[in-house]
Amino acid sequence: MRTPRLAGKEFFTTMSVSEALAGFQPGRSTGIETVPRDDALGRVPASAVVSRAALPGFARSTVDGYAVRASDTYGASDGLPAYLDLIGAVRMGVAADMTVRPATAVQIPTGAAIPSDADAVVMVEFTQFTSSDVIELTRPVAVGEGIVRADEDVAVGAEIAPAGRPLRPQDLGLLAAAGVTDVEVRARPRVGIISTGDEVVPPSTQELAVGQVRDATASALAALVVQAGGEPSRRGIVPDDVDALTQTLATAVQDCDLVVISAGSSVGARDETTAAVRSLDEASIFCHGLAVKPGKPTLLAECSGVPVIGLPGNPLSALVVFRLVGLTVLRRVGGITVPPREPTMTATLSRAVASAAGRLDVVQVQVREGVAVPLFGFSALLSLLTAADGYVVIPEPATGLDEGTTVAVTLYR
Amino acid sequence: MRTPRLAGKEFFTTMSVSEALAGFQPGRSTGIETVPRDDALGRVPASAVVSRAALPGFARSTVDGYAVRASDTYGASDGLPAYLDLIGAVRMGVAADMTVRPATAVQIPTGAAIPSDADAVVMVEFTQFTSSDVIELTRPVAVGEGIVRADEDVAVGAEIAPAGRPLRPQDLGLLAAAGVTDVEVRARPRVGIISTGDEVVPPSTQELAVGQVRDATASALAALVVQAGGEPSRRGIVPDDVDALTQTLATAVQDCDLVVISAGSSVGARDETTAAVRSLDEASIFCHGLAVKPGKPTLLAECSGVPVIGLPGNPLSALVVFRLVGLTVLRRVGGITVPPREPTMTATLSRAVASAAGRLDVVQVQVREGVAVPLFGFSALLSLLTAADGYVVIPEPATGLDEGTTVAVTLYR
Repeated sequence: MRTPRLAGKEFFTTMSVSEALAGFQPGRSTGIETVPRDDALGRVPASAVVSRAALPGFARSTVDGYAVRASDTYGASDGLPAYLDLIGAVRMGVAADMTVRPATAVQIPTGAAIPSDADAVVMVEFTQFTSSDVIELTRPVAVGEGIVRADEDVAVGAEIAPAGRPLRPQDLGLLAAAGVTDVEVRARPRVGIISTGDEVVPPSTQELAVGQVRDATASALAALVVQAGGEPSRRGIVPDDVDALTQTLATAVQDCDLVVISAGSSVGARDETTAAVRSLDEASIFCHGLAVKPGKPTLLAECSGVPVIGLPGNPLSALVVFRLVGLTVLRRVGGITVPPREPTMTATLSRAVASAAGRLDVVQVQVREGVAVPLFGFSALLSLLTAADGYVVIPEPATGLDEGTTVAVTLYR
Repeated sequence: MRTPRLAGKEFFTTMSVSEALAGFQPGRSTGIETVPRDDALGRVPASAVVSRAALPGFARSTVDGYAVRASDTYGASDGLPAYLDLIGAVRMGVAADMTVRPATAVQIPTGAAIPSDADAVVMVEFTQFTSSDVIELTRPVAVGEGIVRADEDVAVGAEIAPAGRPLRPQDLGLLAAAGVTDVEVRARPRVGIISTGDEVVPPSTQELAVGQVRDATASALAALVVQAGGEPSRRGIVPDDVDALTQTLATAVQDCDLVVISAGSSVGARDETTAAVRSLDEASIFCHGLAVKPGKPTLLAECSGVPVIGLPGNPLSALVVFRLVGLTVLRRVGGITVPPREPTMTATLSRAVASAAGRLDVVQVQVREGVAVPLFGFSALLSLLTAADGYVVIPEPATGLDEGTTVAVTLYR
């Protein structure tokens, strides 16, 4: 644990983002709840789901054709066809009530149950009628051809959804096929969102006085939390007052699995966040200051195991840091071990971008026809983030990227 | 319009996927509704949202420091500092009630309103006190330095969210900053999902008779619809009966913006879907058969402008085709002109994959350390789709891909 030094002006004990992500491991994790399968898209199985039965559960035909005994077809060819007596037809959805004796065949549609003693299905395309109850086969079929085995899709006890990976549409399909009606999942992480700053007013405020700004960060953070599978808990706007912030923070830590504070933009406001965290019981500060641009004045702390993230004061920096650090913490709290991938694309950088060695730089870009154009501007401008298609990360060791460098752009969605 | 020929056995008029996507343009599109901003994540603005006011709305300091007249600082250096009388301090969130006269300075925190007649802010780091009310500056500032202009983030009338692009978290942030409380968005496309097949039973069925399978496709389709911003409308399971399907389809077409039928798996069941569509008023069949594997037996039709998609009978093929074709149709109906990108990655193919020229192949793959391993099996096996991390598309002209080919994998999420 590093202790930040605060003396008159604020000093940062800056930590690299990777170091912070590796080391910041508060103990909080969400509980387990049961949800109906069809409400479980994106939810995180608490443990692997296994199938109680085999799927499809009975041997099925994979083609429209005739169920036969394969040995009856051996040697069949155009020159020497095999002839089989047609003794009936299987209907969809019911067990076949006949047995395929030697030299007989039963008509069967795709997906229907294979009748007793048949061990192959010959496609209708390779047959023709010679009379109303005799079919001619001009090629042989092997044992098992045209059949899907009773446990070929899923065996009894097989895993049909792993723990820790958010459920995808096809996972819900397989759970439905297996008759799973409810799933035990990790509860959605409840994320407390606190905005601070004497200048910050609710977004519904229609007329602003000079000096006031509407709270943009809370709406954007709440949406990011929803996208990541969490449940935002808006805790309102607190003025630049240590006691008020302490009180709001103390309540949030009791109610939530993760608390995010978007600090006021001034140094004084940042000091207040630190002071409020310090005043809580069981609180410890992990780091104060990340080697990232934008986003340096980030606080990582925990109170009674609940992670508390103090974000920079301006909306753009706050959102960049929350994507980089907050989403990782949120996933850990919520038990996501296999996070869905972000969309990315490679592009060519339109111009050189400077960075400092030892610092991670997050550069907002527009992508036009394979060319990534960096967007620069004062980092408090949210319009820069809405104009961006995505961002490029310049890793710590680099001192910048040359014009024409091939970069990986993470695309916003 | 191509007319499919149906004569005893089913014949397909096969169309390429790109040809189908270009030509299949039913007229249906969803209406406009108003939603609260904070419920609008992923929703699609019906028209561009413009800001009624400039943002931030007043000139703000970008640093902690002193508001000055830049001309008072010209020539300041370590050897020849400038001295300014400190005449007050600006507080956060309120208008500055003082005027910066020549040779004076006003203390100002980051984000506070610039006082009258100041035209720059000097950072606190470049100043020191010589007495309690005189500060010393050791470097000059230019006009505008340390200040963000009143309309630098957003000008009056500027577009703050484009039409047709689903709203992202940062878009909601900017809308909040601009005081936008409600957004006019396109209604979510209501997607009717009909399952057919005498063999298909509800997923809640605990004990299956031989020949029965649970409806897996509807759950997975509903989840895909939700992911794409639509609203699934489950229309239940219809037996293989033209009249029953016609009735269910007729109701669905009246209630929904898009109707999807997962056909029974047999040829007869597919013929029934076609017959049901044909029997509706104002119905026309666009194509019957797509040059795609899996997914060939796909029907594209419209009834009174509502697109109707007949999917193949097995769950895997149905989901592949719905991703490929259905999601595109869904987005058109719902006014999405800038769809979010799917996550992708490049990987090296572990083995050769055959294809047929003129046919699009969709190959399910697992990706392990940069290597894409194709998963093969009977295309009705849903477990193949849940085992996959993503898929590779082999385009129409190719006759296959060699081992070691670098491929783009679209990743499931």
